[in-house]
Amino acid sequence: MQDIDVKTEHRVTKIDSKEKRIEVVNLSKSETQWFSYDKLIVATGARSRRLNIPGSNAKNIFTLKDLDDGIRIKNYIDEKRPKRVAILGGGFIALEMCEAFRLRNCETFLFCRRDLPAGNLEREISEKILKELEENGIHFLAHHEPAAFKMNSNGEAISFETNKAEYPVDMVLMAIGVIPNVEIAKEAGIELGKTGAIRTDTAQRTNLTDIYSAGDCSEVFNLVSQDWVHTPLGDIANKQGRVAGENAAGGKATFSGAVGSAAFKVFELEVAFTGLGTQTARGYGFDVDSQIIEAESKVGYMPGSKWMLIKLIFDRRSGRLLGAQMVGKEGVARRINALAVAVHQKMSVDEIARLDFAYAPPFSAPLDPILIAAEQAAKKIVR
Amino acid sequence: MQDIDVKTEHRVTKIDSKEKRIEVVNLSKSETQWFSYDKLIVATGARSRRLNIPGSNAKNIFTLKDLDDGIRIKNYIDEKRPKRVAILGGGFIALEMCEAFRLRNCETFLFCRRDLPAGNLEREISEKILKELEENGIHFLAHHEPAAFKMNSNGEAISFETNKAEYPVDMVLMAIGVIPNVEIAKEAGIELGKTGAIRTDTAQRTNLTDIYSAGDCSEVFNLVSQDWVHTPLGDIANKQGRVAGENAAGGKATFSGAVGSAAFKVFELEVAFTGLGTQTARGYGFDVDSQIIEAESKVGYMPGSKWMLIKLIFDRRSGRLLGAQMVGKEGVARRINALAVAVHQKMSVDEIARLDFAYAPPFSAPLDPILIAAEQAAKKIVR
Repeated sequence: MQDIDVKTEHRVTKIDSKEKRIEVVNLSKSETQWFSYDKLIVATGARSRRLNIPGSNAKNIFTLKDLDDGIRIKNYIDEKRPKRVAILGGGFIALEMCEAFRLRNCETFLFCRRDLPAGNLEREISEKILKELEENGIHFLAHHEPAAFKMNSNGEAISFETNKAEYPVDMVLMAIGVIPNVEIAKEAGIELGKTGAIRTDTAQRTNLTDIYSAGDCSEVFNLVSQDWVHTPLGDIANKQGRVAGENAAGGKATFSGAVGSAAFKVFELEVAFTGLGTQTARGYGFDVDSQIIEAESKVGYMPGSKWMLIKLIFDRRSGRLLGAQMVGKEGVARRINALAVAVHQKMSVDEIARLDFAYAPPFSAPLDPILIAAEQAAKKIVR
Repeated sequence: MQDIDVKTEHRVTKIDSKEKRIEVVNLSKSETQWFSYDKLIVATGARSRRLNIPGSNAKNIFTLKDLDDGIRIKNYIDEKRPKRVAILGGGFIALEMCEAFRLRNCETFLFCRRDLPAGNLEREISEKILKELEENGIHFLAHHEPAAFKMNSNGEAISFETNKAEYPVDMVLMAIGVIPNVEIAKEAGIELGKTGAIRTDTAQRTNLTDIYSAGDCSEVFNLVSQDWVHTPLGDIANKQGRVAGENAAGGKATFSGAVGSAAFKVFELEVAFTGLGTQTARGYGFDVDSQIIEAESKVGYMPGSKWMLIKLIFDRRSGRLLGAQMVGKEGVARRINALAVAVHQKMSVDEIARLDFAYAPPFSAPLDPILIAAEQAAKKIVR
């Protein structure tokens, strides 16, 4: 691979798919050049979404997507010692940052449009997350629609106004999702999906000859819903990138899709899920039932056994597992992967109940909580 | 279930399958009675194997199978404060008890017939276990054939003689496996398998009408080797018991078999495996290849990331995963279950490499070590 020419400080500004070339600006010299390509991979990623409300350009309103964002946030805290921090959003980033701000002794307010944090997850899971937030001193403010920020003469937001009230703030984090970077691709005629991200096939090819796409700017095929969705997660980007690279180099790789597994940590709580949630599955026409159990992470007599909640979402008639969500204080994130395989394999809950898992008292009960949940779910199948 | 009549202190001494009755001794009264049955479940379990060599009946030679054994061992240590303990064996119990004896400040000697502990596992895994034992002050003595124990006038073993040397001992644990309790069943004409345990079908029926068997006294069907084997593990016993019970009560349950998953802990090391090992798989006629990788338990920049070793055993031509073994200091025992599902589903290593697992830096790298191992294994498939 001697001929890899890494061009830092260069920005692609245009794709000319007819002439097979890209327009590139050398940022340090402000020069524009054309580069020709044989194969092109569009891996432009995604950027943090920002609200466009009065005052949202204030100096102390941050987003968090990459390392530089993190350093900026860290430096601002070190310099300004903000006392009151407002986080807008209720997803991974918002929840993970609650812990980070609390560790820096900031009084932290989490503003959410919905009634619960992690509103994409099942209610029972979100309720546990809310409890964990509150136990760790986070002020959770539900049903708040952002209206405006008030700024001081220094260009810093000093208060956050919502449909409900006005809150004094010293710092703001907007964690309201990402937008795929598709502008250049779109202008070049690359097809976007209904999600707004770049549409590819399972070989990561776009609609234009010799142009591939991978990562957070592109869609991924969900194996459960059989639909193209936008799931900007690191492990999916990683797999897509390998396939796009291999194919651009003449290979024949495919990435058939994902079931959509993810995990995150909120203070001491592990949250993990795979496949579809109840509402999403219903939206795709599945006849959904679910089973929720509370269990111990290991045999009760072992020290350090902790509670966990498991919810299985399955097809009422076939018993096919459509998704699973778990929350708990130990052994959750790694447990979900067995169910990710089961969802991938279209296993039914009664098949899952009969699996044999590795049992040892320090790690689980003789029947793993997953198996108990599956066994109870199996009783609900309508034959 | 009002009519469950639990008879403690009763021992079954005979099964009369023609008359459908069992002979029972009331241990407290030394009376013998006959009880008639409609359905009978033989769940007689297994007992610790004991070596039959001179001195092996000494008072300070213990085995460990149930809670009473554990209490006896604990009491003996409390009373006699043994300085030097010899453990015979190299399996789960022997290894787990190394830690228990060290915590009681016993100088602990592990005598093994083989060259490595956990000799049923892959060599690379056993070597890591050996290292962990040695780092924790256990004296591992390979290739030792037990010959005799020398006793004092008090009936206590004071030395252990092997083919190599004589070792002074204050206490001995024999942890050399279990023997299924099948004597009464055998006498009654219940068929045993080649393993010496009771042969059943997947409904847990024995060859005799209305007699079922479940648990450590019976065989289990291995779904990978497609052979009936003796795998006396708690989770399998649990599932068999439910099926036997349901069927004895008129149900139609089946336990189709197990892939053979297990885990144990040796000091700070987690060991877990599923499916077949290399030698066993070869013995069953599989054309075996394997892939071993060393990986981090989570993203390297996270505090507390620990090494782990993963070995995948797969069919060289189809790539089908036949088994997996893992060892490491964190996140091993629960990780193996995803591979237990994959083995159960007859997935190939290239299918496994394309799975999406839940990724978050506190729990794994963007590509879980399992996926990396599978990807490397897939390159070895002979097409």
